Amino acid sequence: MKLDVSKPLLDLNDRLAAKNRALFDEHGIFVLDMLASPGAGKTSTILATIKQLRDRFRIAVIEGDIASDVDSQRIKEQGIPAVQINTGGACHLESKMIAKALDVLDLCALDLIIIENVGNLVCPTDFYLGEDAKVMILSVPEGHDKPLKYPGIFQVSSAIILNKIDTMTVFDFDERAFRASVAQLNPRATIFPVSATTGQGIDLWTQWLANRIETGSKVTK
Amino acid sequence: MKLDVSKPLLDLNDRLAAKNRALFDEHGIFVLDMLASPGAGKTSTILATIKQLRDRFRIAVIEGDIASDVDSQRIKEQGIPAVQINTGGACHLESKMIAKALDVLDLCALDLIIIENVGNLVCPTDFYLGEDAKVMILSVPEGHDKPLKYPGIFQVSSAIILNKIDTMTVFDFDERAFRASVAQLNPRATIFPVSATTGQGIDLWTQWLANRIETGSKVTK
Repeated sequence: MKLDVSKPLLDLNDRLAAKNRALFDEHGIFVLDMLASPGAGKTSTILATIKQLRDRFRIAVIEGDIASDVDSQRIKEQGIPAVQINTGGACHLESKMIAKALDVLDLCALDLIIIENVGNLVCPTDFYLGEDAKVMILSVPEGHDKPLKYPGIFQVSSAIILNKIDTMTVFDFDERAFRASVAQLNPRATIFPVSATTGQGIDLWTQWLANRIETGSKVTK
Repeated sequence: MKLDVSKPLLDLNDRLAAKNRALFDEHGIFVLDMLASPGAGKTSTILATIKQLRDRFRIAVIEGDIASDVDSQRIKEQGIPAVQINTGGACHLESKMIAKALDVLDLCALDLIIIENVGNLVCPTDFYLGEDAKVMILSVPEGHDKPLKYPGIFQVSSAIILNKIDTMTVFDFDERAFRASVAQLNPRATIFPVSATTGQGIDLWTQWLANRIETGSKVTK
């Protein structure tokens, strides 16, 4: 069951996404839409990504949260431009919110914008924001069965980051079963096991991202 | 920002919720709506709750998932009636879905229905299903800052289960900060630290629930 309004709402969103996309193309900016559950480690992974790539690319972050600005503060502390969007209850970001955030960024001085979406494995899946790629994070404590329960997000993601692998021994996470489920839903998605806090595996993930930025390839839409 | 349609949609939902509520009252059934992020441990906590209370109350479970029936299978393996609702993409349960599930349960033979909502800290918050109480689970790996980012769900919950406390030493979880944030948002909510897998703390939580069932008190709406 879907809301009846979704079609016109999504059409409007897509038209505004195309405007965002035109701005990104005009300035040669690669844009990543980062999706995950609450607490999967989006901000930590973005911080680890910034650490690896800040000498090669000029980066900014757009932070989407229902409330608070704790995430954008963490980014700004690293000297990286960050814009906080508070959705005031809405469960996902939409193109018009991104358009407003772009107004306050100096697009001429950027190569990469990372959008941290609201923590939610469901709703952000349907909203194209003009990005080059959606990438999702699943964390080990969430369990290996999540692709079965939330298939949509695994299908729209160009890459899947498996975070908190340093806690693999604490949780009963069956990586083989997880990979098999993902392979069925989205055989083209690369899986990057990482620990954003220890840095393990971050190099392979950022290498993938750097390749995409440099070739400017549009991996979604 | 909220969808413009939310008001009529919520009104319709509330009317159907009142019908569900009338059915529950007629049969003297206490109904719990269980909310959490994906992977916070909803099914494990429900299983631990069943284990403690099955000799005192006749229990059934309604499982809400976007896809799959793995959760209802786990419940049925314990000899407990379970109905699986697949929302087919929708990010929350609505009253009309619950009404359909009630059609296949023997309401005369039940004291307690536990509804496991879709894993989502945002959308289920707005939907009254006719339940006596919403209870949320936050798991330690998600982090102590979640009340700041997802205030709504902490405000509507009559009790808050803090799950996976056996992993407290692995994660940088500040329980004092967590309790302070919850106290600001919802000073009346009791917090139950538990480990659904080891059973730690489950007795206090189920004692709270058993009291509510026996007094039949309506703790929300």
